[in-house]
Amino acid sequence: MALLLTGATVIDGVSEEGVSDRAILTENGRIVAIGRAADLSIPADTETIDFSGKFIIPGLLNANVHLLVSALLETLIRYEGRYEELITEAAQVALKSGMTTVFDTWGPRGPLMAVRDRIDRGLVPGSRIRCAGNIIGFEGPFSDDFNKRIPGVGSTHFVDRVNATWVENTGRHLMWLTPEAVGEEVRTYLGRGIDFVKYASNEHGGSSAGAFIQFSERTQRVIVEEAHRAGVTAQAHAQSVEGLRMAIEAGCDLIQHCNMTGPTEIPRETLELFAQGNCGAVVFPLTDNGLNILKESISDYEWTIWKASDTNVRNLISSGATILLANDGGILAPEVMKEPMIKGTWNGLPEDEGLGRLATGHFVWLRAMEEKGMSPMALLHAATRNIAEAYQVDDDLGTLEAGKVADMVVLDEDPLQSAKNYQSIHAVIKDGAVVDLDALPEQALLTADLPPALEEEAHYKEFLHHGERLPGCPSCMNGHH
Amino acid sequence: MALLLTGATVIDGVSEEGVSDRAILTENGRIVAIGRAADLSIPADTETIDFSGKFIIPGLLNANVHLLVSALLETLIRYEGRYEELITEAAQVALKSGMTTVFDTWGPRGPLMAVRDRIDRGLVPGSRIRCAGNIIGFEGPFSDDFNKRIPGVGSTHFVDRVNATWVENTGRHLMWLTPEAVGEEVRTYLGRGIDFVKYASNEHGGSSAGAFIQFSERTQRVIVEEAHRAGVTAQAHAQSVEGLRMAIEAGCDLIQHCNMTGPTEIPRETLELFAQGNCGAVVFPLTDNGLNILKESISDYEWTIWKASDTNVRNLISSGATILLANDGGILAPEVMKEPMIKGTWNGLPEDEGLGRLATGHFVWLRAMEEKGMSPMALLHAATRNIAEAYQVDDDLGTLEAGKVADMVVLDEDPLQSAKNYQSIHAVIKDGAVVDLDALPEQALLTADLPPALEEEAHYKEFLHHGERLPGCPSCMNGHH
Amino acid sequence: MALLLTGATVIDGVSEEGVSDRAILTENGRIVAIGRAADLSIPADTETIDFSGKFIIPGLLNANVHLLVSALLETLIRYEGRYEELITEAAQVALKSGMTTVFDTWGPRGPLMAVRDRIDRGLVPGSRIRCAGNIIGFEGPFSDDFNKRIPGVGSTHFVDRVNATWVENTGRHLMWLTPEAVGEEVRTYLGRGIDFVKYASNEHGGSSAGAFIQFSERTQRVIVEEAHRAGVTAQAHAQSVEGLRMAIEAGCDLIQHCNMTGPTEIPRETLELFAQGNCGAVVFPLTDNGLNILKESISDYEWTIWKASDTNVRNLISSGATILLANDGGILAPEVMKEPMIKGTWNGLPEDEGLGRLATGHFVWLRAMEEKGMSPMALLHAATRNIAEAYQVDDDLGTLEAGKVADMVVLDEDPLQSAKNYQSIHAVIKDGAVVDLDALPEQALLTADLPPALEEEAHYKEFLHHGERLPGCPSCMNGHH
Amino acid sequence: MALLLTGATVIDGVSEEGVSDRAILTENGRIVAIGRAADLSIPADTETIDFSGKFIIPGLLNANVHLLVSALLETLIRYEGRYEELITEAAQVALKSGMTTVFDTWGPRGPLMAVRDRIDRGLVPGSRIRCAGNIIGFEGPFSDDFNKRIPGVGSTHFVDRVNATWVENTGRHLMWLTPEAVGEEVRTYLGRGIDFVKYASNEHGGSSAGAFIQFSERTQRVIVEEAHRAGVTAQAHAQSVEGLRMAIEAGCDLIQHCNMTGPTEIPRETLELFAQGNCGAVVFPLTDNGLNILKESISDYEWTIWKASDTNVRNLISSGATILLANDGGILAPEVMKEPMIKGTWNGLPEDEGLGRLATGHFVWLRAMEEKGMSPMALLHAATRNIAEAYQVDDDLGTLEAGKVADMVVLDEDPLQSAKNYQSIHAVIKDGAVVDLDALPEQALLTADLPPALEEEAHYKEFLHHGERLPGCPSCMNGHH
Repeated sequence: MALLLTGATVIDGVSEEGVSDRAILTENGRIVAIGRAADLSIPADTETIDFSGKFIIPGLLNANVHLLVSALLETLIRYEGRYEELITEAAQVALKSGMTTVFDTWGPRGPLMAVRDRIDRGLVPGSRIRCAGNIIGFEGPFSDDFNKRIPGVGSTHFVDRVNATWVENTGRHLMWLTPEAVGEEVRTYLGRGIDFVKYASNEHGGSSAGAFIQFSERTQRVIVEEAHRAGVTAQAHAQSVEGLRMAIEAGCDLIQHCNMTGPTEIPRETLELFAQGNCGAVVFPLTDNGLNILKESISDYEWTIWKASDTNVRNLISSGATILLANDGGILAPEVMKEPMIKGTWNGLPEDEGLGRLATGHFVWLRAMEEKGMSPMALLHAATRNIAEAYQVDDDLGTLEAGKVADMVVLDEDPLQSAKNYQSIHAVIKDGAVVDLDALPEQALLTADLPPALEEEAHYKEFLHHGERLPGCPSCMNGHH
Repeated sequence: MALLLTGATVIDGVSEEGVSDRAILTENGRIVAIGRAADLSIPADTETIDFSGKFIIPGLLNANVHLLVSALLETLIRYEGRYEELITEAAQVALKSGMTTVFDTWGPRGPLMAVRDRIDRGLVPGSRIRCAGNIIGFEGPFSDDFNKRIPGVGSTHFVDRVNATWVENTGRHLMWLTPEAVGEEVRTYLGRGIDFVKYASNEHGGSSAGAFIQFSERTQRVIVEEAHRAGVTAQAHAQSVEGLRMAIEAGCDLIQHCNMTGPTEIPRETLELFAQGNCGAVVFPLTDNGLNILKESISDYEWTIWKASDTNVRNLISSGATILLANDGGILAPEVMKEPMIKGTWNGLPEDEGLGRLATGHFVWLRAMEEKGMSPMALLHAATRNIAEAYQVDDDLGTLEAGKVADMVVLDEDPLQSAKNYQSIHAVIKDGAVVDLDALPEQALLTADLPPALEEEAHYKEFLHHGERLPGCPSCMNGHH
Repeated sequence: MALLLTGATVIDGVSEEGVSDRAILTENGRIVAIGRAADLSIPADTETIDFSGKFIIPGLLNANVHLLVSALLETLIRYEGRYEELITEAAQVALKSGMTTVFDTWGPRGPLMAVRDRIDRGLVPGSRIRCAGNIIGFEGPFSDDFNKRIPGVGSTHFVDRVNATWVENTGRHLMWLTPEAVGEEVRTYLGRGIDFVKYASNEHGGSSAGAFIQFSERTQRVIVEEAHRAGVTAQAHAQSVEGLRMAIEAGCDLIQHCNMTGPTEIPRETLELFAQGNCGAVVFPLTDNGLNILKESISDYEWTIWKASDTNVRNLISSGATILLANDGGILAPEVMKEPMIKGTWNGLPEDEGLGRLATGHFVWLRAMEEKGMSPMALLHAATRNIAEAYQVDDDLGTLEAGKVADMVVLDEDPLQSAKNYQSIHAVIKDGAVVDLDALPEQALLTADLPPALEEEAHYKEFLHHGERLPGCPSCMNGHH
Repeated sequence: MALLLTGATVIDGVSEEGVSDRAILTENGRIVAIGRAADLSIPADTETIDFSGKFIIPGLLNANVHLLVSALLETLIRYEGRYEELITEAAQVALKSGMTTVFDTWGPRGPLMAVRDRIDRGLVPGSRIRCAGNIIGFEGPFSDDFNKRIPGVGSTHFVDRVNATWVENTGRHLMWLTPEAVGEEVRTYLGRGIDFVKYASNEHGGSSAGAFIQFSERTQRVIVEEAHRAGVTAQAHAQSVEGLRMAIEAGCDLIQHCNMTGPTEIPRETLELFAQGNCGAVVFPLTDNGLNILKESISDYEWTIWKASDTNVRNLISSGATILLANDGGILAPEVMKEPMIKGTWNGLPEDEGLGRLATGHFVWLRAMEEKGMSPMALLHAATRNIAEAYQVDDDLGTLEAGKVADMVVLDEDPLQSAKNYQSIHAVIKDGAVVDLDALPEQALLTADLPPALEEEAHYKEFLHHGERLPGCPSCMNGHH
């Protein structure tokens, strides 16, 4: 059960720089010692792996993923009863991509916890999962908060069942309640075993694109207090400058996509609140190239929003906020990538610039933030230590230190030389064991290719055209206005 | 392989009445002889079954079923790639309900033919299937012809694939073509192995509820000629008095739901065309009780339509048309029965009056037509011989005669006494073998109950309320106008 | 210019009860003296009116009307450029109904101010108007806040122009801004001449029916401060218990429809805030009969909301809140009353119970509150003095006292005997002059009857039926699901 | 009352070419003689106008205009009760543009006939109107046939009233009836005073863009017979190759937009039917430049349709069909031209290529057909004589001959030199009187410019931005899919 990793340059996340030719000894899943190989006392049955020329960093963390992202109705129907399989696939994709721990900040509580526990017990390989279940205040996938077109198309029975799986007692109706009554529902939800609380400071993006305030300041404080009383962290979904400020003042441990504040830049005063260091700032940055591509297919107004989000990232960096890596990472069904609606979203960007892809988006994040001026070591912290601290799991995770969980990524190239080197994954070690990356994911569901075309599709294709109007008819405005 | 059925009253569909204490000898799936047991020469290894006190009638036929009815989006997604299983389940439900042969008049050609062939080869039990595939001229399940809300909710990839499975080269685009070009496409489609041709004389129920004419008279004639040239029958979907007349004049062998002609009754002249006997008239009747129930939940105008449809049935009977039993029989997913939209449709009627259910709707048909004055023997013919003749399979099916396929239903009660006695099924014999009714369907998919409620649903249920407006606000008309 | 009213019982809104046989002397539009006729010194050219047997009360006020309510698209199109005429008509209907002053809390600023000024200058008769223009934070009539179906039907040009007329610089985009930036926009808007500020504490009724918070507590405080700095009052649109509490704490002078808080009753703590008397509580009560009628046509959940609103009214009364009469009073176009959507709203109630009608709704209010236990004098105060005080116009309006504006209603029956007696209007006096009630409204636009049916309508009517589906077709779910 | 026009080259529409220096004598609105001035006997009080150097052609006709085109909801609301004024304005625009007679083939019968009669009696100036009222079989402006979004936005009362104004007894319900019953309704409609009958052979462009057949061949024949029995002509709206053929075979006198047959070119056989000369072929051609512009903003499939329509025009010319000028000419409200939906329609083309504009589209038609190879004289006939003959008004109109109505256009340039010279209108003479072109239209309604922007619009404009989603959120597909 003991493992000795030798010869690599170790970037432990604590020191100011990497140290070459270090050995790391792990036992029972934990790091026992780090030092020169000659200085370590090695147990008898220790397996040794030589990583000479390689670079060892702490296992990467991701502060915001969605292991089951419901963008496509068909996915939720086709895999009903099998959501745990989809989540397992995603946890394995994450692990393969160097993320030894991911924080799922919106998803179906029951299936997420089931997979979490199975991975924790070593029954299946996968990234360590910590999850929030629903975002307190949001309705389910088939609602105005996410996809309002489904009700009326899916059966009532199915729509209600899916929404129940996500929402339970934590949906929009909480907005009608007093702060105390909301607190009670949060307490009940915490009792079901979630790892942290995420609530909505702003709405999720209905008709006002996120500007509404979901809960009053007093209700927000009550929610955070409930989380802290239960010994877990609290975070908020915020999307406007006021929603952001309210969430900090309510005592959140971290806040998601802090840079997304609509057309308005974060004011100086709020940047200073972040600089006090009590609240982690998750940001969603795009690369310059990604921004340029987006600009081509969006309106001037949408561009204003993207530009403000970019300015916010730069201001958060320069103001000294504690920055956390995250990307809403999920596996989109392959059909989604063929949809016209994907255009003008970051998921429609080419893979090198696409922030939201679970397997690669964190690499894009690191390159984007390097472009914006973060130092190499700050990048590493954002992807590891900062997240562990904000989620209060830094006793176990986030750095390479004796006593901590032995989660590591072995890279071929030096990540402190260039952010793109994070992608040069040579090996992943989780709980002190080398992960068999080639075996992941064990079952390809959403990562599988689309099935080949049916014979019938060939017969149909040439006739697949239709239009609604007599071209040019001045009186005929059906569907066009 | 030989079977001797003794002691029953045999109603062979040829004689004017049943004959008591007849024996039927079958061999190799065919009827060898019918007569007094003592008069028959019985092969050595013949198995004998005593049906004393029972009534034997020809296996029932159904001139219009949909073994895969796509009313629910979820069904088509959940069972994608498994449509053959759904069709098999339906064919087994049909057989269990006394229908030894069913004519599927709209469905996915490929899966239907696959199950048809498997049943024909004796690989799985099930009602004999003869199928049309698509209705020439209709688009697929996810279109204006059936459910126009799906495009835009399902992925383009999925929507196109499902539509292709149903439509291939026979969809709405044919309306743009010349008669000759349409004929060519029908010829191509026939070449793929369908058993008969069904085309649209009227549209299927878009904004005009079926009143548009889909194809010109000349195109209709060309379609019918193509079918006849290929040696198969042709039929039409008609829904208006003109659509109906055009289809008869085009040479159709039978016409579906002839009594459904919107608010207008079939004119005398068209009734006389039917009386000439060259074209079978499929009707969809409701019981008096069913009509009364419907009346409660529909508008006056809808009632006009139902009333005309009832008058049409009565006029078709009295004018001497050759009437065929059919009911659009299909298995609706259990979710559908819980939907509000089901109200005011015949599927929303209680089981005793619900015409469209695959397992029981044909019994409703027989009781409804008895109410409207059809004689007992005419009822039997409508459910057996008339259908076989109209579909030109009467060399093999439709009556109990030496040389014909040994398809029979054994009833506990005399069907000539009361139409409700058709429901007293004691045994079903198909291809000369007794069907193990208890084993059907072998796999319960759509016939299974809904899964039990999730724990999450209990948490959600009490909050499952929402409204769109401030009650009473005079300015707030969102979604209400 | 002097007028002497003699013989009536005067209920001045100050004394504990009415005093019989009082004379009121007015001069130049103001009350000069009230007392026994013999005690008054009467100028030479004074006109005297004998109101013996009558009851004189202060002119009624209404704390929330919408003189141009945009429920119907057609109204806004048909009268484009003539909104001032509609507003004038409504102001005259109000005056005729005993309301000498109305507070318009949502409408097009420009036209409202134009009519206000014209009435103030005596150029046209009408109820005195004080107006807020837009509700800070709401979009215009053709938006998600009011009627989201119009964009895409009306031309972009028209939709934008109408929305601009209502919104100017005060719409939803303010939600994106910092409190200070919102304050600046409110200051700009105040500079255009509105009489008081109304802002949205809750949203107006989009997908969450009003539960979202529109502005943070800090922003709400800034808005109220801007109003007070400009010397005018501030009020909020609130619809949830938190929205209500936030608005009180932000320093509002009054709050609209305080009893409408969704399914949740106002908590004790908030009732106590009202009891402190710094914030007027506008309520929208229904009569018992009205509630019973509504109950028949709404869902159980909607009923929960109405029931809570009724409990809230009773609790506000018993907790000692300062209660204000108001009713969203407006003139609905006659077409609206024929719409199915009107059912299940208070506008669909019969006239005797319909709260929202401009001409009669305040009478319904008084009867409803009498049912709920308000004392006769408290009713009078709610309709007069309380409103004047909350809007800080009590130096001039709200009671009958020497020095105040001579606005009075002369009733045939004693309003302290029964609330229904408010409807027995004998005369209305405004600014010291008897109003010619028969002449109002001078121009009947929305109060006119529908035009008679065209000859063409008779030809069309019998065919005006259509349906979207083949009755009963199991595959045909267009528009029904 | 007598008028002598001297000096011009007269192109009378009968001779093979123009004849120079002809004099035309008119009296009482009719042409008395044409010849050399010296040869004519001139009444005493004859007014003489010298048109030396000019070119006189018969007054232009237009076989298909819509004097009230309802493309914009607002127009129908704003001008309710004033449709006659809009029609008058359009008739005056038409006259000013050289069209002395126009055939309105879809519009509100009552207002059209009222204006027609007023012009015929000389009470107002304007192009002579002959009108069909509704297209038999179509529903009104607010229906699936034209704009299906209005019902549910406009009040039921208004929607029904407008539809009644257009439809009366001739709407979609006729599709349910027997041919004889349809005939009876047509007879009733003829009795109300229309000038010719237009019916739908194809639907108008619902979900199948015009491919459905509206009426059976037998019903079409009955409709045509009713028209002929009443002494008027019959025509059809056709949009598919079968719809076109059926209409010819039904005996139509002319058929609208014959070249618009979806993606399929008119087959040879149908071209030959036209070549027999009994049925006029109205075509809607685009210029090459117009087609090229369109191609940029439409899909490949739409382009297939436009290309087929262009090929059809060329084939109709070369096959010898009798071609008629028409263009669906109407006056679009100025708002329409600012709508995005206008793009990709011929109305969105620049004025020089826009076929549908009432004032200029006929000039585009002439230039387009010249490009496609029509001879100069054939162009003149298409715009004059052919139309008069097809509509059977050639006893009075269409050529310059003694005895005919004195309708003429005086051009500065020779139209036989170049089609663009038709635009060089020097004078228009109708009923023997020179029209005061400068005075037309007498009242600018739809031809007026948009009103100037309101002050409020300036306040609003900078904030007029909104979006529905959090940019990039993978779960948030509201309104985008």
